Amino acid sequence: MNITVCFDQLDARPWVQGVGAALPQARVSAWTPGAPQADLAIVWAPPQTFIDEQPGLQALFNIGAGVDALLKLRLPPALKVVRLDDAGMSVQMAEYVGHAVIRHFREFDAYEADSRMGRWSYRKPRSRADFAVGVMGLGVLGERVARTLQVFDFPVNGYSRTPKQIDGVRCFAGPEQLGDFLQASRILVNLMPLTPATENILNRDTLSQLQRGGYLVNVARGRHLVEEDLIALIDEGHLAGATLDVFRTEPLPPQHPFWQHPKITVTPHTSARTLREESIAQIVGKIGALQRGEPINGVVDPQKGY
Amino acid sequence: MNITVCFDQLDARPWVQGVGAALPQARVSAWTPGAPQADLAIVWAPPQTFIDEQPGLQALFNIGAGVDALLKLRLPPALKVVRLDDAGMSVQMAEYVGHAVIRHFREFDAYEADSRMGRWSYRKPRSRADFAVGVMGLGVLGERVARTLQVFDFPVNGYSRTPKQIDGVRCFAGPEQLGDFLQASRILVNLMPLTPATENILNRDTLSQLQRGGYLVNVARGRHLVEEDLIALIDEGHLAGATLDVFRTEPLPPQHPFWQHPKITVTPHTSARTLREESIAQIVGKIGALQRGEPINGVVDPQKGY
Repeated sequence: MNITVCFDQLDARPWVQGVGAALPQARVSAWTPGAPQADLAIVWAPPQTFIDEQPGLQALFNIGAGVDALLKLRLPPALKVVRLDDAGMSVQMAEYVGHAVIRHFREFDAYEADSRMGRWSYRKPRSRADFAVGVMGLGVLGERVARTLQVFDFPVNGYSRTPKQIDGVRCFAGPEQLGDFLQASRILVNLMPLTPATENILNRDTLSQLQRGGYLVNVARGRHLVEEDLIALIDEGHLAGATLDVFRTEPLPPQHPFWQHPKITVTPHTSARTLREESIAQIVGKIGALQRGEPINGVVDPQKGY
Repeated sequence: MNITVCFDQLDARPWVQGVGAALPQARVSAWTPGAPQADLAIVWAPPQTFIDEQPGLQALFNIGAGVDALLKLRLPPALKVVRLDDAGMSVQMAEYVGHAVIRHFREFDAYEADSRMGRWSYRKPRSRADFAVGVMGLGVLGERVARTLQVFDFPVNGYSRTPKQIDGVRCFAGPEQLGDFLQASRILVNLMPLTPATENILNRDTLSQLQRGGYLVNVARGRHLVEEDLIALIDEGHLAGATLDVFRTEPLPPQHPFWQHPKITVTPHTSARTLREESIAQIVGKIGALQRGEPINGVVDPQKGY
């Protein structure tokens, strides 16, 4: 079995070594143009050339949860695209979102600003009942986030394309229930896949349906959000702030207004980093399952886009 | 039944009204010097005069979890002292500590400092296995905090005066196991009661036993901590930072070095605020139980000091 590793702007060597050590019977190498045909590939943002030169591939393993960049390529219809599911990402996402939601609800950012000025002053405690959190996207990451927020007794709403059931979460599904979901939520957490149907879904029309004084936490993709609509809704006072980990252009350009906006917290796409050891273990496990003809999780449906 | 409410620097009126509404058969009033004898009292930092003038009291209900200030008064031996247990405080404490622990572990404070300078830069993900959290004090609040940290997959150690068992928490007990507990922990969360045995327990000797690069989160009492020892250990590089909600003097004096220390986050004793409605409901429930001769939670043992 030949396995090739093709990464954009990431060092492939430790992955070649790690997968090789776990699968001693396989030949594992980093892809270069003109390399021999491989049976399987482990990829991060590969170029179209890679796909075109490797018609014999049976499966592509993406080392992230989102496959939107991959699905923009022309892929042979029979090629199986597999994304990471969890592999240490869901707990990081639960941390990131938990931290952001608590920070907004408890106003810890304002307390820290007070503290930098040497000011000891209380804020009136807010009622948790007024801070329902709406989680958009109820995949592996979204479900873990929704369950984590329940630990802090927040009312939690969930939204997904197709109906889901999660204990204690008020679930909404499909475009016809999107308005009800938004109107029932004060803090919106975006964890949807990026597809043609979800691109620009966070815009003036949708975000203005959040409860007044609401917040946005975007940890999915920058292209979900119409950035100027968010700034306008914050500046108009309908929304109270946002925590953003993803952007239409990454790295976020130096002159972008998000950097200096006092109510927007920017992090550099770090909410859930791919952990090499966990990811290699998961991909190696899936390769074994494929060889034994067993079903695996994370196979992408190109029609749905995730 | 006569109930009196005696608060230092807090408006007693909404409490008088709330308790009166819940117990229409009782006479509820705010205490003033020379007021008639009451059977029960609801207090916050009452003066010695109050205790001396009310020898007929059967029970004092403290509207907080910590009773250290109350136990410094001369109290009649038969007077029952009752503290709040939970009443909406444990979830606040779980939030505060969860936010602080995640912030330290994920270096979100450093990311925000980068962001204020328009800097997009990654930090190497740290391993959760290197960030065991040690929770000192396993009462109602400590146990909830320990359970919450497990949701984020941190290794959790617990320390208490007498042995306790909490699923998934490595529990240590008594002074002879304090060293082992500290050496097994990277982030220390203090939730102990303040008693003569625990005053100044966070000092150079104990804090220097935490793992290198450790952090302190103090949400119990300022008098647990020898403040200059903490600053020295941070400045020497053994500890990496601290989040402090309580101080030896509150409000924290304007010239105190904690305010401007770049590795110390100060909040104004706001980690778990007393919530009036929840607290009144709990106290009213306990009054009913006492009247029926039933046991209640939260009765303080003056020998133990909590």
